[in-house]
Amino acid sequence: MKKSLVALALMGAFSVAHAQSSVVIYGTVDAGITKLTGSSVAEGKRDNNKLGFRGVEDLGSGLKALFQLEIRFEPDTGTIENTSGVNSRPLFQGQSRVGLQGDFGTVRLGRALTAYQETSTLFEPWYGIPAVAGFQTDLQVAGYTSDPLSQTGNSKNRFSNAVFYNTPVIGGIFQVNVTVAAKEANGNAAIIGRGTAAAPQFAANAIPTTTPYSLSATAINGPFGAYAAYEKNAIETKLWSVGAYVKPVDALKVMATYQQQDQTENVLINPKTKAWVVGANYTVGVGKILLGYGQKTPDNVLNNPALAKTKEASVGYEYNLSARTFLYTDVSNKRAATTANYVALGIHHNF
Amino acid sequence: MKKSLVALALMGAFSVAHAQSSVVIYGTVDAGITKLTGSSVAEGKRDNNKLGFRGVEDLGSGLKALFQLEIRFEPDTGTIENTSGVNSRPLFQGQSRVGLQGDFGTVRLGRALTAYQETSTLFEPWYGIPAVAGFQTDLQVAGYTSDPLSQTGNSKNRFSNAVFYNTPVIGGIFQVNVTVAAKEANGNAAIIGRGTAAAPQFAANAIPTTTPYSLSATAINGPFGAYAAYEKNAIETKLWSVGAYVKPVDALKVMATYQQQDQTENVLINPKTKAWVVGANYTVGVGKILLGYGQKTPDNVLNNPALAKTKEASVGYEYNLSARTFLYTDVSNKRAATTANYVALGIHHNF
Amino acid sequence: MKKSLVALALMGAFSVAHAQSSVVIYGTVDAGITKLTGSSVAEGKRDNNKLGFRGVEDLGSGLKALFQLEIRFEPDTGTIENTSGVNSRPLFQGQSRVGLQGDFGTVRLGRALTAYQETSTLFEPWYGIPAVAGFQTDLQVAGYTSDPLSQTGNSKNRFSNAVFYNTPVIGGIFQVNVTVAAKEANGNAAIIGRGTAAAPQFAANAIPTTTPYSLSATAINGPFGAYAAYEKNAIETKLWSVGAYVKPVDALKVMATYQQQDQTENVLINPKTKAWVVGANYTVGVGKILLGYGQKTPDNVLNNPALAKTKEASVGYEYNLSARTFLYTDVSNKRAATTANYVALGIHHNF
Repeated sequence: MKKSLVALALMGAFSVAHAQSSVVIYGTVDAGITKLTGSSVAEGKRDNNKLGFRGVEDLGSGLKALFQLEIRFEPDTGTIENTSGVNSRPLFQGQSRVGLQGDFGTVRLGRALTAYQETSTLFEPWYGIPAVAGFQTDLQVAGYTSDPLSQTGNSKNRFSNAVFYNTPVIGGIFQVNVTVAAKEANGNAAIIGRGTAAAPQFAANAIPTTTPYSLSATAINGPFGAYAAYEKNAIETKLWSVGAYVKPVDALKVMATYQQQDQTENVLINPKTKAWVVGANYTVGVGKILLGYGQKTPDNVLNNPALAKTKEASVGYEYNLSARTFLYTDVSNKRAATTANYVALGIHHNF
Repeated sequence: MKKSLVALALMGAFSVAHAQSSVVIYGTVDAGITKLTGSSVAEGKRDNNKLGFRGVEDLGSGLKALFQLEIRFEPDTGTIENTSGVNSRPLFQGQSRVGLQGDFGTVRLGRALTAYQETSTLFEPWYGIPAVAGFQTDLQVAGYTSDPLSQTGNSKNRFSNAVFYNTPVIGGIFQVNVTVAAKEANGNAAIIGRGTAAAPQFAANAIPTTTPYSLSATAINGPFGAYAAYEKNAIETKLWSVGAYVKPVDALKVMATYQQQDQTENVLINPKTKAWVVGANYTVGVGKILLGYGQKTPDNVLNNPALAKTKEASVGYEYNLSARTFLYTDVSNKRAATTANYVALGIHHNF
Repeated sequence: MKKSLVALALMGAFSVAHAQSSVVIYGTVDAGITKLTGSSVAEGKRDNNKLGFRGVEDLGSGLKALFQLEIRFEPDTGTIENTSGVNSRPLFQGQSRVGLQGDFGTVRLGRALTAYQETSTLFEPWYGIPAVAGFQTDLQVAGYTSDPLSQTGNSKNRFSNAVFYNTPVIGGIFQVNVTVAAKEANGNAAIIGRGTAAAPQFAANAIPTTTPYSLSATAINGPFGAYAAYEKNAIETKLWSVGAYVKPVDALKVMATYQQQDQTENVLINPKTKAWVVGANYTVGVGKILLGYGQKTPDNVLNNPALAKTKEASVGYEYNLSARTFLYTDVSNKRAATTANYVALGIHHNF
């Protein structure tokens, strides 16, 4: 049986040699039972749930081509992450990137965490996952959003239409990461900002007024690690952040971060938000203990100067069943305008 | 070329060892040409179309970690199952589960068929697939829906936000299966029920008034199989069901089920629906014959006490081209308020 | 630990032997930086971005079962192709097909490019990809749409609900391809056509008035290739097209196409559109040069007889880093009612 001429010719035209394909399928399924003050017992997640596809092609002379596509989903309902009518997140919410790696570093195009958002996860006691007991979403990034001009319901810590550059690790210690996004509209709802309801500062589906960018620098040397980062988003909110960790013994990692958000360009009242987080990870046998405490001074809220600080304290425990599967429990207390306690018990499985 | 420090550190932080990953990709593509009384010749499916990802990790001491993610799609249009505007089904409509298996049985969290819905497929002559000629959707489950508080267009035989437990197979014969769902809102449209249009019994996006659960018990011993099941959904509709099969010879499986739905809590008129189905599968050479007949007494329909019984008779034939590919034809006659004949001819391919 | 009886029984009932599964995962990630007259620098794509799953099962006696499922996505945002509210394209926009191949040729059911649309890509200098510098979308097919009765935002060169037949390659040279679609509604918005706004010729979600079909014939013999095609869509627009290529030397392919669209059945003014494209691909070392020029006489536009011709000239260059990865640049000039220049620089990676 001969192959279709069209098919043969097309394959030739594209110069495709699929034989040496080496796609890696990977992912995480994490689900647990949760209880939040004022809510029923529910089923939820601690980590992001992922199904990803990635590959590396060796091009010779130290050059490599890289791609990565990562689906994010809700384990308790089977939907794409944050599905709510038309406002669900992208299919490849985790990331969608392609690029090259060589002596010059790594250059990739597409959508992914910004340099700042990715770097900061390394200095947060819950690894930057969106766990309710964790500090990344609300405190670690001072409530800052990298992508205010995306659709309602979209995630707030990524750039679409961006170029991602990582330097090589200089001297085995230093690395600089840069993310720059094009000024493209991404389907935002109108944002009043410093305007009025009739004339909002940012109309629906607005073009960014500035080129969004994100910078981070890390220094990691033996038991010590530190970073500094600066980011400016599409509506000119600025954020800077610093953090460090130390591992006095192999089993213990102690970490702290500080960050400040400046919304002067787009809010009238209380444009500055500050936050700090301290935490530790401690490995004991097949288990690991996670500890964290953090505070955030008032987020900007229009016409409400009397805002409460957010104070959050959390403890977690992971019991490793293997190198890629563990059971966990998290307990958290968060005080802001109201106080909420949270407890979770679940399973985390990588594949 | 050194790897990114951030990447290295992240990998360490998550304690991930992806090397031993063993994801199995599986699926079904089933498409055919169909003709239903009163409609044009169309293209459709007989079985669910699936693209799935699953894995088992051996944790030692008889313990295993399991996950399964299953996309469902329409082969004739390429869309996610039942796509219709904002009301498409979840990406992983088939199932989205993670859990553990051991001497204690199997415990999984996520979204999947309820214990009753899964068990009953084993006693239906079309294997519980949604074939028009089959009996599962309409007769086998007495028109019952496991998930009345889901979005319009969603499937009706699964629990989201659920815990799934299967006992071990006791004595090589008995097994009990339990599914319990959390009381979480799932985006339903308002249901009038025993209320009024102005004050519906269940508002849009209602919290279940009761914890939905599903129980089934099976006994399978050589050529004999039987089950009993009981389920109560989020709006307190109850269903019980029993069924059995016998294989007088290896090539023949004869089966029957009976079920009763009780909607007393949420409908005013005709709250009880009864249904029964009898059928057989008979293997002849590389072919298999499917036979079925069933009846359902009037479904509840508000303000219409004069409802017709549903009577359905079907015959199907499968011609196996291999262990995972067959051609099929189905012919069916269904009488209710109106009568419809149906014929289908297609191909079913597992991968 | 014994497996679940239900699971065992289900596996038996379906006669599934997944062990010999041989799914191939393949795809393309293509992203670049683009600049179009009047727009900001943006991130976009040149080729379709794909993540696909396909397999071939040998059934013996020269018979094979085939399936292919292909996700299409936007690399710069991570979304499914053309996502815009409820009007995103199908998950498996690339194709969703299953069928058999044997001495009789290939028969497949599902959704994919029509015979005409697939064949013509072989005679277009940008391989029929949707590159802005390419000619396929606008000129090559004379602005014709194969699927006018699909949802707003859907792609226009595929049939859903179709049967696809390819003859064997007769004498090693000739092949005929046929696509026929069922008359099923696909969710179109109303089309006024020869009607009025109050009484549009085609209502929303209309059933096709005719069976859509597409025919193409190819003759490919050594350095010569030619095709002829005819297609009629669901609203009775007709198109015919011819094309040819020659390879005077291995490194050079010169090609030309002509096509004519006839919308007499559904537009009142200027129902006929003509287009032609000439182009060349020239391989030089590890690079390839793409050249093209084409014209289209006025598309039909209601109440506007004074339409401008479209004239497009493009040049592209591909620098191969390997058999499956290349860098590219495209430059294009397009003159119609307005004139636009376009330049792109990017990376194309197959896996």
